[in-house]
Amino acid sequence: MHDFSNVKVILVNTSHPGNIGASARAMKNMGLRNLTLVQPLEFPSGVAVGRATSATDIIEAASVVDTLQAAVADCSLVIGASARSRRIPWPMLSPDQCASKVLAELSKNRVALVFGREDAGLNNEELQLCHYHVQIPTDEGYSSLNLAAAVMVICYELRKAALSDNGRLNPEEDELWDQAKATGEQVEHFYEHLQRVMIAIDFHDPDNPRQLMQRMRRLFSRIRIDVMEINILRGILSNIENHIKGTGQDTGKPRADE
Amino acid sequence: MHDFSNVKVILVNTSHPGNIGASARAMKNMGLRNLTLVQPLEFPSGVAVGRATSATDIIEAASVVDTLQAAVADCSLVIGASARSRRIPWPMLSPDQCASKVLAELSKNRVALVFGREDAGLNNEELQLCHYHVQIPTDEGYSSLNLAAAVMVICYELRKAALSDNGRLNPEEDELWDQAKATGEQVEHFYEHLQRVMIAIDFHDPDNPRQLMQRMRRLFSRIRIDVMEINILRGILSNIENHIKGTGQDTGKPRADE
Repeated sequence: MHDFSNVKVILVNTSHPGNIGASARAMKNMGLRNLTLVQPLEFPSGVAVGRATSATDIIEAASVVDTLQAAVADCSLVIGASARSRRIPWPMLSPDQCASKVLAELSKNRVALVFGREDAGLNNEELQLCHYHVQIPTDEGYSSLNLAAAVMVICYELRKAALSDNGRLNPEEDELWDQAKATGEQVEHFYEHLQRVMIAIDFHDPDNPRQLMQRMRRLFSRIRIDVMEINILRGILSNIENHIKGTGQDTGKPRADE
Repeated sequence: MHDFSNVKVILVNTSHPGNIGASARAMKNMGLRNLTLVQPLEFPSGVAVGRATSATDIIEAASVVDTLQAAVADCSLVIGASARSRRIPWPMLSPDQCASKVLAELSKNRVALVFGREDAGLNNEELQLCHYHVQIPTDEGYSSLNLAAAVMVICYELRKAALSDNGRLNPEEDELWDQAKATGEQVEHFYEHLQRVMIAIDFHDPDNPRQLMQRMRRLFSRIRIDVMEINILRGILSNIENHIKGTGQDTGKPRADE
């Protein structure tokens, strides 16, 4: 049986503390322990503790943070629950595909499973922090899942996959990789650097962004960049900056501050 | 998609009306409609209606009966949820095996999915009214599932099995994508352009290549780049070239050949 200590369940901006408790209970039923709450509306909460029944240990040990970005900073695989199809489609997993991805990753890296608000889910910015979106198949006529029910299904599929041997028959790409995957924080620094360079070369106008950064995020999050690749890409960006600052061989003229 | 009108969800002796509402919601999410309540402690109930959110139609149409025997009288397949192993072992199904049994039956006969009390489950007499027991795999340390969470998992597996019968469960990424994938030729032109730029910014030395182009190919070939992404990347490369050729804002000096 796999060890789920590298799996974080992250609940973003939960309104009803009962859902936090019920989610903790579902997690514990399925053998998960690490709960992170991003700006819960009401927490700590006696209602959360009541609905958690015997999973109060998970509630008591929960981390509370201010942003999803902070919550996933140490994670190299981030999967967000999404009910709707988005304007920019994102790589989409079914719950069992999600479980396979997580299982392949958790022996080496931290993994985040992210669940949004009861009424509105995750917003676009939060969804773009995810490598994949996972969608629970629902009836066309009624797709609005209770938060804890969604947590239950995703954690259940994870436990089920861990119990079965299927994961070993078709190892995921990640298991065979020669480099560690970059963490969320490393990837964010890359995006910041990329944005600076795209502005400097007049490719990107933050006042007229044309979804450019979203498209870059969608591209690189599909790739699941490893640490060496991040270093190469950052190196390329730094060399571009050095050249456009006037040290390129075409100008031949050192700047005053060098 | 299968028609679930022959599937009855039966809740026996439910104590908390909130669980009736949450179970109705889970059923409706998964496309099930027929709810039967055997001696609910508190019903009708505003709490049940509140937790049902948009599944109040299922609550309003629910049948209330006195015994499980009456509830399953018209069913030819009865499957009961069971957390514990019993003194007399009974044919036991996993949730996905349960789904297969139900699917195989529902075009011809009525099927019952039976869930017991929150604290004590189904008693022995009730369990013996079932053809099969279904057990949701839980962590050894904490097997007590919330009633609505158990209903969710069983109904989810049923929907999943019905969708996979139709081959629609795990759509390929390409089906959902908003852009055409780039052709091999377009991708090769991108690599050539990338190499030119990396040489121009002194990042890449073809005489000492350090596997750089292989690593770039490995990076971008992990995903299937789409046409818009290729155009963006080529646009970035062109702007870099324009800037390092001396039209950057730092030099301000047009070259002779421009």
